[in-house]
Amino acid sequence: MENLELPRSVEIIEVGPRDGLQNESNFVPTKVKAAFIEALWQAGFKEMEITSFVSPKWVPQMGDAAEVIRLSGNHPGTIVLTPNKRGIDTALASGARAVAVFIGVSSSFNQKNINKTTDEALNGLIPHIRELKNKGVFVRACISTAFHCPYEGEIAPADTIALCKVLADAGVNELSVADTIGKATPQESFSLFSLLKRELPGVLIAAHFHDTRKMALANIYASLQAGVTRFDSSAGGLGGCPFAPGASGNAATEDVVYMLHRMGIETGVDLNLLNHAISVVEPHLSRELTSWYYQSYKKEQHS
Amino acid sequence: MENLELPRSVEIIEVGPRDGLQNESNFVPTKVKAAFIEALWQAGFKEMEITSFVSPKWVPQMGDAAEVIRLSGNHPGTIVLTPNKRGIDTALASGARAVAVFIGVSSSFNQKNINKTTDEALNGLIPHIRELKNKGVFVRACISTAFHCPYEGEIAPADTIALCKVLADAGVNELSVADTIGKATPQESFSLFSLLKRELPGVLIAAHFHDTRKMALANIYASLQAGVTRFDSSAGGLGGCPFAPGASGNAATEDVVYMLHRMGIETGVDLNLLNHAISVVEPHLSRELTSWYYQSYKKEQHS
Repeated sequence: MENLELPRSVEIIEVGPRDGLQNESNFVPTKVKAAFIEALWQAGFKEMEITSFVSPKWVPQMGDAAEVIRLSGNHPGTIVLTPNKRGIDTALASGARAVAVFIGVSSSFNQKNINKTTDEALNGLIPHIRELKNKGVFVRACISTAFHCPYEGEIAPADTIALCKVLADAGVNELSVADTIGKATPQESFSLFSLLKRELPGVLIAAHFHDTRKMALANIYASLQAGVTRFDSSAGGLGGCPFAPGASGNAATEDVVYMLHRMGIETGVDLNLLNHAISVVEPHLSRELTSWYYQSYKKEQHS
Repeated sequence: MENLELPRSVEIIEVGPRDGLQNESNFVPTKVKAAFIEALWQAGFKEMEITSFVSPKWVPQMGDAAEVIRLSGNHPGTIVLTPNKRGIDTALASGARAVAVFIGVSSSFNQKNINKTTDEALNGLIPHIRELKNKGVFVRACISTAFHCPYEGEIAPADTIALCKVLADAGVNELSVADTIGKATPQESFSLFSLLKRELPGVLIAAHFHDTRKMALANIYASLQAGVTRFDSSAGGLGGCPFAPGASGNAATEDVVYMLHRMGIETGVDLNLLNHAISVVEPHLSRELTSWYYQSYKKEQHS
C-alpha cells in the first residue's frame, strides 16, 4: 500500500510576533520584539506576521505596532495585520508591503469580535482588498472558524469554501485557513484542504492549526497529503497556554519544523537558530513555553 | 483526491495500570489500583495490561502484582506483563489468561535492560512462548525500539520485521509494536505498519506510540491509514511527564479516543467514564496529569 505523496518542501509563515504575542498576557518591550523578529529572520523564515494595527485599547500587547514596523518592517517577507481601513492606511504609511486582513466564516464569531455578520464584514472588506491590490500590496486573508466555531459549532465546508471564493475573486493573494479553536480532526483537515486546493487553484493556501486538542501535527500531516505546502505556526507555541480557558494553543513552529525535517520535507528554517530566537523573547513572558523541542534545547543550555 | 480509507472501529488496549503506573515516580496503593482498573473496565475497554511481574527491587511500583491480579484479574481481557520464566509461572498461578512478554529490536537496548543481546533474549523467549501457547494462553509480544533506539539511533524496518516474524512463527497472538522514545514520524509509522500488516497477516498488530515529540496522534492517524486497528494507550497519559529526562510520555487514551470518535471511528470507550477512572488514580500520583481532555473534565468538575 503506497502512502499519499508528500511535498518536498513547504513554507512556514511565522506568526509568533503577531498572533503569538497578541495572545500572551503581558506586553513584551518593543526592543525585545525587534530582537526576536530579527532572530527569527536569521533562522530562515521567508514570511512573518510581525505586528497588528488593532486597537491598543483592546489589544495593548500590539500597542507599539508602528514602532515595530519602523524597527523591523524592512524585510520583504514582512506581513502586518490590519483590522480596518485606518489600520490599512497606517500600515501602508509605515511601509508595509504585505497586509493581512481577517474574517470569520461564522457570523456569530464575527458578531462577537467586530459586531458585524459575515456578510457585513465581507462587504466592508472587499473594497479594502481591491484598493490594496491596486496599490500592488500582497494581501493575505486570515479565515477564522473555518472548521468549528465556539458559538455555532461545526461549520459547513461549503460555507468556508464560499467565503474563500469571494475573497479569491476580490484578488487576495493568500488564504490562511484557520482551525481557530483547535478542534479539527485530520480527516476534516484533509477533506477541507483537498476541496480548497481543487476549487481555488489560483490562490496561495496556508493551513493554520492550533494544538488545543493535541491534533495540530496530525492535521498538518493530513493537510500535506491534501497538497498544502504553506503552514502558519508560532515560535515557542506563543499564543496561549493550551490548558488555559479560551486559550489559542498555536502549533509551535519548532515542533512542526522538527516533524517536517524528519520526513525529509525542507523548510529553510534552522532549528537551532529558531530556538535561540525563542530564548530572546521567553524571559519577557508571564509563563514558560512548553514545546517539546524548545524544552529540550533549554535543558541542553543548562546542562 | 480521495483520502485513504480509515477503519470503522478500533480496539484500544489500555496500558495505564501497567506501563503507565510503572513509570510514575511513586507507588499507588493496591486498593486504588484495583478501583482504577475496575473504573477502566466500566469505561468500556475490552483489553488491559493491569500489572507486571517485574522485580520489585527494580520496579517497586509493581511490587503488588500478585495482589492486583487477585483483586482485579478476573476480567477476560486482563493482560499481565512478565519478564521471565518465574514471572510467567507466577502470572499463570495467579490465574492470568493473557500474558505479555517484551523484547527490544535494538541489541544495545536489550543489553542495557536485561543484559542480553536481541538474539539471546529471543532464544530465551521462544520456549516460554511455545509453553504458553501449549497451555492455551493468549500471548502478546511487546516490541520496544521498533523505530528508534536511544543508544543505536534509527532502527532498520527490516530488523523490526524480522524480529516480529520470528515471534509470529513462535505463535504469539499479538505484536505490540512500540515507538519507545517517541521519535517516529507519521511517514515512518505508515511505512512500518503497512509492511507489518502485509508481511504478517496472521497475527494481531497493535501500535504503541509515545507523545514525547507531540507526534503520537499524527502517528496514530498515519497507522490507521496503514490498516492498523489496535492501539495501546495510557489513561491520563500515565507513564512519565513528556518533559522529564528519559520520560516515556505515553499517548493519553482520552486524547486518542477523542480524535477517533470525532472521525467516526468506534472504540466502545465512554469518555466520561474514562475521565472518572483517571480521577480515581490522579490524587495518588506525584504530579498532575496534562492530557487536554482530562484537564477540560477537571475544569468542568470544579466550575
